[in-house]
Amino acid sequence: MNSQEYPSRLLENAINELAKLPGIGKKTALRLVLHMIKWSNEEVEQFGTSFITLKNEVKRCKVCHNISDNETCDICSNTSRDNGIICVVENIRDVMSIEHTHQFNGLYHVLGGLISPMDGIGPADLTISSLIERIGSGEIKEVILALSTNMEGETTNFYIYRKIKDFPISISTIARGVGFGDELEYTDEITLGRSIKNRMPFEKTFGDNH
Amino acid sequence: MNSQEYPSRLLENAINELAKLPGIGKKTALRLVLHMIKWSNEEVEQFGTSFITLKNEVKRCKVCHNISDNETCDICSNTSRDNGIICVVENIRDVMSIEHTHQFNGLYHVLGGLISPMDGIGPADLTISSLIERIGSGEIKEVILALSTNMEGETTNFYIYRKIKDFPISISTIARGVGFGDELEYTDEITLGRSIKNRMPFEKTFGDNH
Repeated sequence: MNSQEYPSRLLENAINELAKLPGIGKKTALRLVLHMIKWSNEEVEQFGTSFITLKNEVKRCKVCHNISDNETCDICSNTSRDNGIICVVENIRDVMSIEHTHQFNGLYHVLGGLISPMDGIGPADLTISSLIERIGSGEIKEVILALSTNMEGETTNFYIYRKIKDFPISISTIARGVGFGDELEYTDEITLGRSIKNRMPFEKTFGDNH
Repeated sequence: MNSQEYPSRLLENAINELAKLPGIGKKTALRLVLHMIKWSNEEVEQFGTSFITLKNEVKRCKVCHNISDNETCDICSNTSRDNGIICVVENIRDVMSIEHTHQFNGLYHVLGGLISPMDGIGPADLTISSLIERIGSGEIKEVILALSTNMEGETTNFYIYRKIKDFPISISTIARGVGFGDELEYTDEITLGRSIKNRMPFEKTFGDNH
């Protein structure tokens, strides 16, 4: 269309807002907004305010920096969890992923990113000093580094390791190897090489495939 | 996770709202909401209110039922357009599609759907009586039926045709045939058959491929 692409400025405005989200183009946004117009006033009101309320009221847990409705998140304030183990992760989605496995009952520490000089992210942009404080408090027995196995993850692992290696704690990292259900033929060389080098007693795998 | 899938009720609420949109699942909604959290308060406010404002303030043009910011839409109130021709379409997206072609300078009539007994949509649910009133006003010379070429479209075409055939107007429908760029080999039989039956003088196609 010539001067005006949409028949209504209000419609155009709503489309432009929705298209700010990653992966949502103008065509998809148009389709979604036209769908939304059919909702009741109350439903649209509820939709729009949910994001504003989230942004205004959501907090970061003062202990682990996970997203939370309270000063301290539900995981950190759960007394049935082992507060001697900290699992260090990049972001809150990783917390959710690990929680889904039901294999971990300790606490987390959310870094808020990975060290990436290319993106201008240095150690000071992450919650590493807060992690060191937590470890310094003395209650921690083990730190698990559960970061992505890419360049940024390895750099961050190594940086944190050097900062905390003198504390009287054990430091581990998540096992790397061939994924469950993967075919050896299609596994990359580095992963396969590491999985052979770090082979483990067969008995230890009993019960893994639950 | 056991009782709680997300670390925050506010987050969960925003995710559930976003996942009400068609084609957006919980995982996508989570990704989008976590992206949104990084926006400034003002940006989120602007995002959320854009939908509420749209819902509260957008109007339907009283002439053609297109979506509009005013009582009468920009197309109907544009005096440089031919108000003797009405193009009947299913919805406002069709208006936008036809406007994009720059091949039509008349007015529109938005039905708001197609007759579909299966979905419980009858003629009274559409703006057909309002179309008949417009035609009855006497200024209309031509009505173009530009509906989808499926069963519902054909039914609606035929219903409208019977209602308006006695007015002193010409009634046309959009040309059906092989689409531009289509290969004959992959064109369905009905389309190909019709395109041969309704063949047109070759000179008329000059300038079509602009």
